[in-house]
Amino acid sequence: MTMLALSFARVCSGLAPFRTVLRLQPLCSASGITVAQIDEEVAKLLELKARLGGGDDGKHQFVLKTPKGTRDYNPKQMAIRERVFNTITRCFKRHGAETIDTPVFELKETLTGKYGEDSKLIYDLKDQGGELLSLRYDLTVPFARYLAMNKITNIKRYHIAKVYRRDNPAMTRGRYREFYQCDFDIAGQYDAMIPDAECLKIVHEILSELELGDFRIKVNDRRILDGMFAVCGVPDDKFRTICSTVDKLDKLPWQEVRKEMVDEKGLSEEAADQIGEYVSLHGGMDLAERLLQDPRMSQSKQACAGLSDIKLLFSYLQLFQVTDKVVFDLSLARGLDYYTGVIYEAVLTQAGVAPVALASNDAQNGSEESVSVGSVAGGGRYDGLVGMFDPKNRKVPCVGVSIGIERIFSIMEQRAEAAAEKVRTTEVQVLVASAQKNLLEERLRLVTELWNAGIKAEVMYKKNPKLLSQLQLCEEMGIPLVAILGEQELKDGVVKLRVVVSREEVDVPRSDLITEIKRRTSDA
Amino acid sequence: MTMLALSFARVCSGLAPFRTVLRLQPLCSASGITVAQIDEEVAKLLELKARLGGGDDGKHQFVLKTPKGTRDYNPKQMAIRERVFNTITRCFKRHGAETIDTPVFELKETLTGKYGEDSKLIYDLKDQGGELLSLRYDLTVPFARYLAMNKITNIKRYHIAKVYRRDNPAMTRGRYREFYQCDFDIAGQYDAMIPDAECLKIVHEILSELELGDFRIKVNDRRILDGMFAVCGVPDDKFRTICSTVDKLDKLPWQEVRKEMVDEKGLSEEAADQIGEYVSLHGGMDLAERLLQDPRMSQSKQACAGLSDIKLLFSYLQLFQVTDKVVFDLSLARGLDYYTGVIYEAVLTQAGVAPVALASNDAQNGSEESVSVGSVAGGGRYDGLVGMFDPKNRKVPCVGVSIGIERIFSIMEQRAEAAAEKVRTTEVQVLVASAQKNLLEERLRLVTELWNAGIKAEVMYKKNPKLLSQLQLCEEMGIPLVAILGEQELKDGVVKLRVVVSREEVDVPRSDLITEIKRRTSDA
Repeated sequence: MTMLALSFARVCSGLAPFRTVLRLQPLCSASGITVAQIDEEVAKLLELKARLGGGDDGKHQFVLKTPKGTRDYNPKQMAIRERVFNTITRCFKRHGAETIDTPVFELKETLTGKYGEDSKLIYDLKDQGGELLSLRYDLTVPFARYLAMNKITNIKRYHIAKVYRRDNPAMTRGRYREFYQCDFDIAGQYDAMIPDAECLKIVHEILSELELGDFRIKVNDRRILDGMFAVCGVPDDKFRTICSTVDKLDKLPWQEVRKEMVDEKGLSEEAADQIGEYVSLHGGMDLAERLLQDPRMSQSKQACAGLSDIKLLFSYLQLFQVTDKVVFDLSLARGLDYYTGVIYEAVLTQAGVAPVALASNDAQNGSEESVSVGSVAGGGRYDGLVGMFDPKNRKVPCVGVSIGIERIFSIMEQRAEAAAEKVRTTEVQVLVASAQKNLLEERLRLVTELWNAGIKAEVMYKKNPKLLSQLQLCEEMGIPLVAILGEQELKDGVVKLRVVVSREEVDVPRSDLITEIKRRTSDA
Repeated sequence: MTMLALSFARVCSGLAPFRTVLRLQPLCSASGITVAQIDEEVAKLLELKARLGGGDDGKHQFVLKTPKGTRDYNPKQMAIRERVFNTITRCFKRHGAETIDTPVFELKETLTGKYGEDSKLIYDLKDQGGELLSLRYDLTVPFARYLAMNKITNIKRYHIAKVYRRDNPAMTRGRYREFYQCDFDIAGQYDAMIPDAECLKIVHEILSELELGDFRIKVNDRRILDGMFAVCGVPDDKFRTICSTVDKLDKLPWQEVRKEMVDEKGLSEEAADQIGEYVSLHGGMDLAERLLQDPRMSQSKQACAGLSDIKLLFSYLQLFQVTDKVVFDLSLARGLDYYTGVIYEAVLTQAGVAPVALASNDAQNGSEESVSVGSVAGGGRYDGLVGMFDPKNRKVPCVGVSIGIERIFSIMEQRAEAAAEKVRTTEVQVLVASAQKNLLEERLRLVTELWNAGIKAEVMYKKNPKLLSQLQLCEEMGIPLVAILGEQELKDGVVKLRVVVSREEVDVPRSDLITEIKRRTSDA
């Protein structure tokens, strides 16, 4: 702590004129300060320093970091990322999706009025003259804008790209300010619940293939929620705000949610208790059938429509062989304003992996970090969003799902780390090497032959590298083969092909080398 | 024109309080106004409208567009983009590169002082509290920041990502404000010119594989340029600015460049003429040898070092079999400040494709659009950039190349258009269809079997689609096979497999279907 205190003092004195900006007094003197708090204050100070454009000694000094809430991906992380993307893309393509791309920023007004309270998390660009722009917050709103702009009324598309939210980052748990979303959406007027069921089939396939452990896909419907609110006596104008409170049920126990409803949102205790009964229910098609008979619930036309659709959905899910993981859960209430029908969310249920903790275990803790559970995919039906962009409000029904990939990366990275798994970051099949001096030209000639034949090959960028260092490079990078050239080999018209793992060496006629390398690496 | 005038009048009246912002008077009354000018003014007005957040009638009305200088990619364009990326990525991987990713924005100060005059084109983010951020301008500076931050002294990496420049867009020619760069860089202390030569080999491979027509790769060296300036009598403090003027030689004829040197930059006529002699030279290794003997040039140690390296470079390029396209060209002077050695730029030399016009043809025109020639790749050596991020200024020598992909996309898209080429946007192998009613469940059951076996398959999202509309969907999307189910087929335990192109139909036992589909689509 002394070291920390010292460095604080130095930073504080260097920033004397700006003391008013920061509450440094309690920081420098108080006891009982946590490391997390110190880290946070250091980050703030470094930010301030960055804005001042220099260090305390007057000499310009870079703050060598990425922006808050963002990260670089190193080659190992990229190799894992590529694997995950390939699995996801393969699944999207298997289901016949096309792909589109949209700009990373949109006109500010395109995003306005789509995200409710979360709008405060949107990154705006500086007004440098011209249009007012914001970074995209998700891929759904740009998709809707794209459909309306191009008057597209049906498409099945996927879109894998980064989105931006000025949220509180929790990076060890895979919560970033810049993060990838992998979206799959089906737009078009189709027979009920078939596309909706396919979205769930896709989530099931992807989470199974990624082998992230057991998972559940919770399903509900906005119309059931609204109908439930109506029959429980929630006033119409409180539907949205009560819905937001229900949405906290995956983070907070019922008693706290109930408290918020009654104390903060002014709901009657009676209404809250009735809601409480419903949101504790979960099941399958049978639950939907039971609720259709429920004397209170059946009074709501909306709820009945939703419940009938849930029944239909489950019948398709049976055909798709995914009912083992899907739960009809009345407590699911996704936050976004634009959903109009079915909603769903997938959670990992194995607490074995560090960043994924079950809500119930952490619920009493209540801090924002500990309650971020294993939600790794979510989505639903949004039949009104495209119409918001159409001058004549022409609607295009849509349903889609978004895979939250960063949390999956975190899990995969930690696993690779834990298993001390050797992740290859290149695909090089062969290193062209030499044991003797003055053979650079011969090495370059041979590697050119290999490149021209489509073989992934490297040479060391040295005139006279040692054989040992060339072999070490192979070990390090996981290169399976070495093609060794020497005076004798050149004379005999052969290349010595060495298998790195077994140290086996064999002379291959130069004319057969390409075929031989391809043969030996074809299963790699 | 009447229509236009009318709509102008309406917009003008709607914006009366803001008239001072725009110079509307000349616009509304003047004659001889061009369509381009009108378009520009309309864009300005729409921008203003967007900022006011509403239309003239008070009702909120969206401006349904992407931000200036940006575009969406539709599925066809994405299919082309994917093909180009695959070719490029395959080449980078063949040469043993790893890949990394960095955030789309950096701390503003990370970009400060790296781009000279072009810094004004950087997009800043709005100060919403916290750090000051800017969108990345290229991938090179973030790469250097990454190396310094992680203390990496050698790596061969590629990075394919979007970069941002508030430049004047010329979108039909592939010049955007948001555009992709495909960068390949080699960092590390190696024997001279080997990595540099590999970068040129890579450009050669990529441009050849993409079949964009003939191309040239111009090569020069910053040290040769500086040496040349010194021996021609350019004062030291004018090197950079004279270099910028020389850089315009691909857009302007020598006489205009000379004029700028003398009239604007205050260079003596004698010095300008001496430069003029040198910059008209181009050749191969022979030219480098000749210049090493040149009585004036040989006085500069710097120039001699550069010329010797060019010789060495060409000797490696011969081994790499790429000298057919590489020209040592003394007029090449790339704008960026950070280059320290070899520089290069690839240009397409076939004027056959619309957006690529040769500079010489357009030079007298002088408008910014017409002079943007076919430069599709560029790069060079930058040994000092990483050191700028290191507190102790430890240098990491780097050389790299950036493929300017948007122009390549433009060419490919126009070609696909011109050839009326059928670009498939999905990879679906088979549509599960039915000729009869009430078979939705059977179709869903079969498509599930196919998906679970990894077959790319679709069904129409209708309970009872017509067979004709199912076959039309196949035609439209290029789906090669249809698996048709009917009562009879279900009874017989077969599926009728139809080849869309030939209309051939064959009954396949259900148990053999997956194998049969895989067999028939394995070469697809």
